[in-house]
Amino acid sequence: MVAEAKRMQGYGSDFIKEMFAAARNPEMISFAGGAPAPELYPLDAFRSASDKAFDLYGRTVMAYDGAYGVAQLRDFIATQWMPRAGISVSADNVLILSGSQQGIDYAARLYLDEGDTVIVEHPSYLGALNTFGALSAKYVSVAIDDHGMRMDALEDALKRHPEAKLIYTVPDFQNPTGITLATDRRRQMVQLADRYDVMIIEDSPYFEIRFDGAFPPAIKSFDDCGRVIYLGSFSKTLCPGIRLGWVIADDRLIERYRVLKEATDFQAGTVAQYQALTFLQDHPLDQHLGRSREVYRARRDAALTAIGQYFPSGVTHTRPSGGYFIWVEAPGVNATETVVYAMNDIGVAYVPGESFYATDPRVDTLRLSYSQMTEDKITEGIRRLGVLLGERCA
Amino acid sequence: MVAEAKRMQGYGSDFIKEMFAAARNPEMISFAGGAPAPELYPLDAFRSASDKAFDLYGRTVMAYDGAYGVAQLRDFIATQWMPRAGISVSADNVLILSGSQQGIDYAARLYLDEGDTVIVEHPSYLGALNTFGALSAKYVSVAIDDHGMRMDALEDALKRHPEAKLIYTVPDFQNPTGITLATDRRRQMVQLADRYDVMIIEDSPYFEIRFDGAFPPAIKSFDDCGRVIYLGSFSKTLCPGIRLGWVIADDRLIERYRVLKEATDFQAGTVAQYQALTFLQDHPLDQHLGRSREVYRARRDAALTAIGQYFPSGVTHTRPSGGYFIWVEAPGVNATETVVYAMNDIGVAYVPGESFYATDPRVDTLRLSYSQMTEDKITEGIRRLGVLLGERCA
Repeated sequence: MVAEAKRMQGYGSDFIKEMFAAARNPEMISFAGGAPAPELYPLDAFRSASDKAFDLYGRTVMAYDGAYGVAQLRDFIATQWMPRAGISVSADNVLILSGSQQGIDYAARLYLDEGDTVIVEHPSYLGALNTFGALSAKYVSVAIDDHGMRMDALEDALKRHPEAKLIYTVPDFQNPTGITLATDRRRQMVQLADRYDVMIIEDSPYFEIRFDGAFPPAIKSFDDCGRVIYLGSFSKTLCPGIRLGWVIADDRLIERYRVLKEATDFQAGTVAQYQALTFLQDHPLDQHLGRSREVYRARRDAALTAIGQYFPSGVTHTRPSGGYFIWVEAPGVNATETVVYAMNDIGVAYVPGESFYATDPRVDTLRLSYSQMTEDKITEGIRRLGVLLGERCA
Repeated sequence: MVAEAKRMQGYGSDFIKEMFAAARNPEMISFAGGAPAPELYPLDAFRSASDKAFDLYGRTVMAYDGAYGVAQLRDFIATQWMPRAGISVSADNVLILSGSQQGIDYAARLYLDEGDTVIVEHPSYLGALNTFGALSAKYVSVAIDDHGMRMDALEDALKRHPEAKLIYTVPDFQNPTGITLATDRRRQMVQLADRYDVMIIEDSPYFEIRFDGAFPPAIKSFDDCGRVIYLGSFSKTLCPGIRLGWVIADDRLIERYRVLKEATDFQAGTVAQYQALTFLQDHPLDQHLGRSREVYRARRDAALTAIGQYFPSGVTHTRPSGGYFIWVEAPGVNATETVVYAMNDIGVAYVPGESFYATDPRVDTLRLSYSQMTEDKITEGIRRLGVLLGERCA
């Protein structure tokens, strides 16, 4: 049969597929999925907004609109949403994507020839590695600490790899660790990108899911030279089923994204964009997100309390101030082997940490997502997992 | 600044962007756009279906569903829709795309290394050339006649280009010519693909917009070896703003499409898929499309009548039995130069034929789309264009 392209070789993990399947078993206490809690989707408000969109815009919602996206939605994002992250742009700097994942794919298509180098966090977001992998990227991993990517390690990587073209980072409540990049490091990252001539992809789908403190300025807010491609998402603030995200970039880059949009899927859904626009106009973000933040905060608290109570000493973990994820390091445990027992024997699912490393995987790590389980289930799941880890640490 | 990937070089025509802009000027008699007539979108039925989807499926419509697409929609397409084209498959052979254009992109990503060869019709669909171009494909063009791609010319191309990996074809009311591939040639194309070991991408968005005669069997219906990737679309039967299409392929290929879906945009919109499903369940296709077929048939007739009356002798054209397009050859006319005069001086837009050739462009050709103009406007536009062509043929 016809041979596949080289970029497809060795590519195609079934990992996400399997984790989604596990997360759907209603008997399982699942810390695996990274999706919002379905009971928090604003069903009635979204349905009303959908009706209103048909009333207000009629046939327009069913037609082609163009690759940039619906003008009013771009304007809303530029003027109402992005200032929350300290980003000051106009609608011309916004293009609507079919989910923010697509913005990673376009950056990769735009910049990466086969074997080109991407700098990622150690560990990094599995979905992004999936995307870069589909274009045969090479990786350089940069160490993180409690304040995100270490700038000394980043500069060292940039010196050793002058061929690197992209830095990929999730600065807010990172997937998988839950860690947030410190504000001074955001400024430094832009300075380093300028000095070593690389682009930054700032992927921030969890930005709005903050439990404590003020929003930090985005990396993009320090960008004077058009080096930062900012990706935003509706998945965590409205719902993932609408498949809408956006990119913020300078004019020249937005034109390249437009070209790629036309070449790949022409435009994001017009129906979906008008639904989102109408929803956003009628439901101020903070009001709508208030309940979500309370629920996720309580779940985080339940998870941290249970970890403190039930995990064996020697196991360490992060303390996220937002988002969905806690990262666990369990020295001596092979979390990849253990997950099979966890799912089959104690009815608990998580994602082995190994999957999140672009290089030098650590098998003694795992990701816990508290977003989709009630506090009771979280406590019980952590208790069971604590017993299992205790047996395997020994 | 950071250099772009090689595949992006010289890439990025503003053509589609400009043509869409021209088509939107309400003063213009536009034969340029290739979209459905907005007045034919089933607004009320779609709105009711949307409401019903919220009633029936609740929060499910807002959640992640998975890369394959919504199971009931895949099943509907497999069991209710594809048999119309003589294709007998199960839901496992269907994956839902964010528009059928995405299915072209995935085939290209799956099979084309840089500089690999694609066989296309001469002329071919601009959007597909745009997509293949974004992966630096090389082209071999195969001549067409009134019955579509010539099989002798195809075999000749396959002999001369054993390195070719894909044949891309629009068999029904082709964009841009309106020509339909004869049934015996469909069978032969599969036989040639088997013999010379290439894949076929069968892109059939206009299939349902047939004015006369029975549906011909799809190329895919002759495929015993999994060589044909069939692409279908909701854009012409429901509306383009929903951005949904699908791929039909054998199990192994559906898995590769699934991998690419996860790597690029994760899944098509869940909201949109449930809207489409509910609409399709409540509105039998032929009943819903009856009025569209009548309207487009009347517009085609108006266009053909006016061409007969007003175009100078020596100008030839196709006679489509469905779809949106008539292809015109006007010897001695440079249609690329003439379009500027047509738009500015006589208020008529069309797409110069040159854009549709992957190789050896002919500037004396143009594409007329009758889908979006009333019969009066079509007659008047063709009259004006006839005068202009008469002046320039001379």
